[in-house]
Amino acid sequence: MKIKKINKVAFIGIGLINSSLARDLRNSGFYNYSSAFSRTKKTREILRKLKIVDQVDENIENTVRDADLVILGVPVAAYSGVLKQISCYLKENAIVTDVGSVKKSIIKIAKKYLPNGIDFIPGHPIAGTENSGPEAGFKGLFKNGFCILTPDINVKKNSLNTIIKMWNTVGMKVDIMDSTYHDMVLAITSHIPHIVAYSIVGTVSDLEKSIKKEVIKYAASGFKDFTRIAASDPVMWRDILISNKKSILDMLSIFKRDLSKLEKAIKKEDSKFLYNLFSKTRLIRKKINK
Amino acid sequence: MKIKKINKVAFIGIGLINSSLARDLRNSGFYNYSSAFSRTKKTREILRKLKIVDQVDENIENTVRDADLVILGVPVAAYSGVLKQISCYLKENAIVTDVGSVKKSIIKIAKKYLPNGIDFIPGHPIAGTENSGPEAGFKGLFKNGFCILTPDINVKKNSLNTIIKMWNTVGMKVDIMDSTYHDMVLAITSHIPHIVAYSIVGTVSDLEKSIKKEVIKYAASGFKDFTRIAASDPVMWRDILISNKKSILDMLSIFKRDLSKLEKAIKKEDSKFLYNLFSKTRLIRKKINK
Repeated sequence: MKIKKINKVAFIGIGLINSSLARDLRNSGFYNYSSAFSRTKKTREILRKLKIVDQVDENIENTVRDADLVILGVPVAAYSGVLKQISCYLKENAIVTDVGSVKKSIIKIAKKYLPNGIDFIPGHPIAGTENSGPEAGFKGLFKNGFCILTPDINVKKNSLNTIIKMWNTVGMKVDIMDSTYHDMVLAITSHIPHIVAYSIVGTVSDLEKSIKKEVIKYAASGFKDFTRIAASDPVMWRDILISNKKSILDMLSIFKRDLSKLEKAIKKEDSKFLYNLFSKTRLIRKKINK
Repeated sequence: MKIKKINKVAFIGIGLINSSLARDLRNSGFYNYSSAFSRTKKTREILRKLKIVDQVDENIENTVRDADLVILGVPVAAYSGVLKQISCYLKENAIVTDVGSVKKSIIKIAKKYLPNGIDFIPGHPIAGTENSGPEAGFKGLFKNGFCILTPDINVKKNSLNTIIKMWNTVGMKVDIMDSTYHDMVLAITSHIPHIVAYSIVGTVSDLEKSIKKEVIKYAASGFKDFTRIAASDPVMWRDILISNKKSILDMLSIFKRDLSKLEKAIKKEDSKFLYNLFSKTRLIRKKINK
């Protein structure tokens, strides 16, 4: 498998995913030199202490200049601004990739701002925790997971191979997928569960103080899991939901229809319906890699 | 604290909760002798191998006869049948308790079938996993958790103390609560999250084969947690939802209203609404004992 030699890699934005990636790639031999840019001074200071990249910049142009590979790890709403800013400083034939959770909308943005000759390989490593920020990252986050890439058919073979090689280096298997299909699958596996968890925990947050206290005290399996999901990064999730609006609203209407059916079954005390549904859902669990 | 001396304890039904309790109480000095009844031959055989009680019966009358304490661990729909069956074999002044997840409806059933002089102390240890059956139980399940008791004001003080002592013995703190309030709090912390998880996993189960395969393959945080919740015991959950119907339907309509608000915000791309909600929900997590 022919890959591009990566002398310098540039991390733009360094939260949970990019900082875990930086940790895993360091000393892996995948690159010779690494630089990182963060917008805020505080994050840059944390980054310098973490020593997971060779150079920390407050100037995004310096970060991407001479980089053979640029990895975007910023909220979806920041893509336009970042790509506009870096486009004229990119090295000829540089590869640009990202780690964002939605793919269709950001491909549109990349097409608009990236110059010809730059290969954009959109990527989504299926990994994460509810924590965010550079200190939340850790070595081994990606191990045995899947990374989905949604490249244009016209990208150079060795650019694509390079990104595949990068994710393999940190322990991920890579699948290539159409971006629309990716966004639909992820709406189901991740976005809808987050919406529902955010909504339920939000409902509790609005309850009067006394009952809220009891709910928190007796948080059982169920609500406790939901609070973990609903503790995810607010900016990231605001952007994901808006940028994958279509798939999400489509799936949400199917989910609401099914929830109403279940509600009706409870109202009518339809034991058979309930038992059948709950037996069917149990089977799905057996197929999931725990 | 004056408690009743327990010579013999009887476990009726021995799934995850009762079998964990039997494990924890064994050799604790709380009782001298223990018996257990299970309806099915298979469970009785498993029980004999597990050696967590002194005697395993196929005859429920033998199990409760001479017992100072009877602990019901059966699905809600089985309470009527069981209580009817045991009522005339109960020892005078025996205490009856249970470990079920709903309280108001089973108090009604107990009032109907239990003879005068028997103290019924409804209990709900907030503990569990998605697994069920006697082999799913384990030592230490209850450690550092809460058990909610919802007794009638007329029960004898030393009967109540005995049940408090039992849960303290296995590591739980005990709170006394009104049964209606219990059912409302639990509708929020446990029943609604289960309904939602069952519904979403059910929606996925009905998807066409190809996309279902992808959803299972890329199950991320969110859906994966939901499949765990939706793998809970179908019979138990069928019964919980039907018997706590009122509280559940009340809370479900509030949740559906809030979900529609969130849906509208996504539709209108109302970043501010989304950001505010997701920040608010993050705060709740900090208050939860992880």
